[in-house]
Amino acid sequence: MPAALEKAIQLWQQVLNSDQIVLDRETLAQYETATYKTSQTIPVILRPQTREQVQDIVRIATQCETPLYPISTGKNLGYGSAVPTANGCVLIDLRAMNRILKFDKDLAYVTLEPGVTQQQLYDFLLAEKSGLWIDATGAPVDTSIMGNTLERGFGHTRYGDHFRNVSGLEVVLPNGDCIHTGFARYPSATASEVYQWGVGPYLDGLFSQSNFGIVTQMTVWLMPEPDYMQAFFCSVDKDNLGALVEALRPLRLDGTLKSAMHIVNTDKAISAFGQYPWSETNGVTPLPRDWLTRKSKEMNVGGWNASGALYGTRAEVASARRKLKRALSHLKSKRLNFLDDTTFKLSKYIRIPYKWLTGVDLDQVLELVAPIYNLKRGIPSNAFLPSAYWRKKKPPPSADQADPNRDRCGLLWLAPIAPMTGEHATIIESIVEETLFHYGFEPAISMTLLTERCIDSVISITYDRDIPEEEDRALQCHDELLKKLIAKGYYPYRLSTRAMGQLPAPEASYSAMIDKIKESIDPARIIAPGRYEENKND
Amino acid sequence: MPAALEKAIQLWQQVLNSDQIVLDRETLAQYETATYKTSQTIPVILRPQTREQVQDIVRIATQCETPLYPISTGKNLGYGSAVPTANGCVLIDLRAMNRILKFDKDLAYVTLEPGVTQQQLYDFLLAEKSGLWIDATGAPVDTSIMGNTLERGFGHTRYGDHFRNVSGLEVVLPNGDCIHTGFARYPSATASEVYQWGVGPYLDGLFSQSNFGIVTQMTVWLMPEPDYMQAFFCSVDKDNLGALVEALRPLRLDGTLKSAMHIVNTDKAISAFGQYPWSETNGVTPLPRDWLTRKSKEMNVGGWNASGALYGTRAEVASARRKLKRALSHLKSKRLNFLDDTTFKLSKYIRIPYKWLTGVDLDQVLELVAPIYNLKRGIPSNAFLPSAYWRKKKPPPSADQADPNRDRCGLLWLAPIAPMTGEHATIIESIVEETLFHYGFEPAISMTLLTERCIDSVISITYDRDIPEEEDRALQCHDELLKKLIAKGYYPYRLSTRAMGQLPAPEASYSAMIDKIKESIDPARIIAPGRYEENKND
Repeated sequence: MPAALEKAIQLWQQVLNSDQIVLDRETLAQYETATYKTSQTIPVILRPQTREQVQDIVRIATQCETPLYPISTGKNLGYGSAVPTANGCVLIDLRAMNRILKFDKDLAYVTLEPGVTQQQLYDFLLAEKSGLWIDATGAPVDTSIMGNTLERGFGHTRYGDHFRNVSGLEVVLPNGDCIHTGFARYPSATASEVYQWGVGPYLDGLFSQSNFGIVTQMTVWLMPEPDYMQAFFCSVDKDNLGALVEALRPLRLDGTLKSAMHIVNTDKAISAFGQYPWSETNGVTPLPRDWLTRKSKEMNVGGWNASGALYGTRAEVASARRKLKRALSHLKSKRLNFLDDTTFKLSKYIRIPYKWLTGVDLDQVLELVAPIYNLKRGIPSNAFLPSAYWRKKKPPPSADQADPNRDRCGLLWLAPIAPMTGEHATIIESIVEETLFHYGFEPAISMTLLTERCIDSVISITYDRDIPEEEDRALQCHDELLKKLIAKGYYPYRLSTRAMGQLPAPEASYSAMIDKIKESIDPARIIAPGRYEENKND
Repeated sequence: MPAALEKAIQLWQQVLNSDQIVLDRETLAQYETATYKTSQTIPVILRPQTREQVQDIVRIATQCETPLYPISTGKNLGYGSAVPTANGCVLIDLRAMNRILKFDKDLAYVTLEPGVTQQQLYDFLLAEKSGLWIDATGAPVDTSIMGNTLERGFGHTRYGDHFRNVSGLEVVLPNGDCIHTGFARYPSATASEVYQWGVGPYLDGLFSQSNFGIVTQMTVWLMPEPDYMQAFFCSVDKDNLGALVEALRPLRLDGTLKSAMHIVNTDKAISAFGQYPWSETNGVTPLPRDWLTRKSKEMNVGGWNASGALYGTRAEVASARRKLKRALSHLKSKRLNFLDDTTFKLSKYIRIPYKWLTGVDLDQVLELVAPIYNLKRGIPSNAFLPSAYWRKKKPPPSADQADPNRDRCGLLWLAPIAPMTGEHATIIESIVEETLFHYGFEPAISMTLLTERCIDSVISITYDRDIPEEEDRALQCHDELLKKLIAKGYYPYRLSTRAMGQLPAPEASYSAMIDKIKESIDPARIIAPGRYEENKND
């Protein structure tokens, strides 16, 4: 252990209890484990319980020139979990700071700390009979709301673009100072929680996807439960992706579709809720297309499968439904189904006659549909977690017992952004198919109509970490896919620790400016070295 | 003229044509004139035509340590017009940079330069048969879209919070470098125009309400014309403001009201479309309440008057209308009217029988309503400009000839933000009334339900600059009002040059950090000294 770090630990021992300083190898190894190969080691984990302790930790780190890497709860699955971007960083695990500090039912917001999880906030709002929804993601229920928001994650409701819906950050700076952004820098301001810009330059953006400070509080806006919600599911043939995107864009742009819609291909749909059919395929990979065709018929899954939700009064939803039907009417071999709370409950009783009539196993379909339906009404779930076990040989544990880091599941995500046109969607589809097949993986793709004019495509590379050759291939596959996507102009909205450092250098003036800001705020380069830093041309 | 400035002018003469360097006193005096007393002088105006010229100008300024103050078109009426925040700044007038560089009809955006005005973009979209709307403000038609957006101005449609709906800035930094934000820093990126965050820290906020650079391009998102729009107008008694806000908040929060709604008091409504009744009041100021009561009856104006718009399909609008009616049903003495294109056209024919039947002069009402109605469908107008002449003795020129700077109209705006509750709205109302009456002015207030959870109250202090005593009183009134609002926690969303420097010091850590960023980007303090800079406690 370097002398500087030893000195820092001595000083931290003066401000933290002994159980807040973790040095045992077994725990450290857990935090060093992601869902893909990493080499960064963590010498110590610190577990502050208050903002003041975070300030103390940072001051000591700066004094001893010891780099820190903050995580909220470290559930950044598929992007590096809790693993720092640089070797030898002291991890600050903020999960013990999990208070909900303020709640305003009328104005629909909560102020929370980094450790507050999706499940915790969901439960809180239920207990308060708030009539308010969180915007949940498909990530596990114990994922941090703040961590996801600072990574600019997204969900499924009207509040799906998370970073657009927060206000008033509290940030500990590298020098140990604490600042409050927007109006919150004036302690008496009444509107800190309800107006994001404040007055003067808007700084919140500096603290998302960056290494300029440690966010210890934020206000999150909540969506009032709508009068009525109807989810819809639309499947089209594989060659209809472009037409589907073109048909949906006007509805997303004009506000008929108020929330992020998700469109997944067959590989993504099938791998989301099952495991690789090892025996049926005699162990051949990647997944044979004829098996996929058979299975997708059985499960009523199309080449591309869109799911979204309509929110409003019953009349508004009915009007939106008519518009949606009309917009999709020209698509060949399309299947469009609607689901609301009533039919959702009913469907459980009709599954047997339904199978007789149609040959479709509604049980399987419902198992697939229920968690998606619930996400659209802000209910988090672990149901998507077992999909990380797709390529494992042993069956996955139950959703609540699943731990892809521990169980050596291989999962790498890559999420490029494109303008919302059929052409762009189709180009991404073909790049992904070509590359993943080449490396022997299934091209599991989702395309989210994230904002009113862009697509966020999330590509999953799923494999078995217990097969070293497969891991090497998966990492190569990831790197080449990223390169090919960027060559066509599709840059990721978010970076895994693997992708960090793989983007091309931006214009030199830009990296020079960011460097100057970093230098001015964090001259000792204490906070998260390498995290979202720009590459430079030599 | 200081030697440094003389040197700078010599150097500018090498990179600009002579007509791009303005030194004649008369023109300078025009730019030095706002709608309230200012003392800042402008030694030179530069009129670049390209981004490269802006870079040259800035490099020379930095070299000669000569401060610059950029304006887009300088129509920041009520907040200081074109007048810099500090004395002796060289003005960079960007109005000649007025190209619309990119237009995508399908993805509904334009990329534009600082000089593009509301009217220009409106005309462009009409000529292109785009089916797209701008979000217009009540500012004059020759106001810059970019200038308003960087000041975080707001309008009347679904895209009302302007800074939320832009992407990919091009910025000239104080060292003369040019950067592009978001994905635009990668020249090949396809999504620069459609996704605001890019990847890594989001920097756009640094360049709004600040002095860190000169923005020379941005992409502005446009709203597709809805199937149908219905405007509504609701008047309630003066003591019903709180109840009105409480009734409307749930509809704003749940998305029934998709756009910023505006609520104005009687003084604001009456002064918006007429001039002070000098003869009827025998010159007594402030406006006698009995005259106001009589006039408001004649014009069918209430104590508080809300106007908003419902957008969507006919069925969606009908549903929203029912919800709105229900929400307002318990309000006493409420009048609720709806207006769409059909009734708007019809009403012109029924104005005479309407007057016979009701005693209400529909002509006057329509004159008042038409520009408001048009704003809600993105049509800019000069109709609100003559209201700056409210306290002048001579009648105002026609709207298109009006020039409040030239004509020595007194106008000072102050716009505090509050959480969207009846209680906060009522507190602001009473602070404004008390203060403005005390100083002899009409308390003209608008309350905009700007976002889903906050109110932006715009207070107008209107007076006659030809009466020096009145001007002194108006400035005192402004300063005291600002102080009182801040004492109650209501901070402005935007600052006039007058208010700049009057905010209390924020937490020391915050101003220290902002200082460091400024120092790192603009060590010579070349760009807009004093603009949105933080005060410090001694």
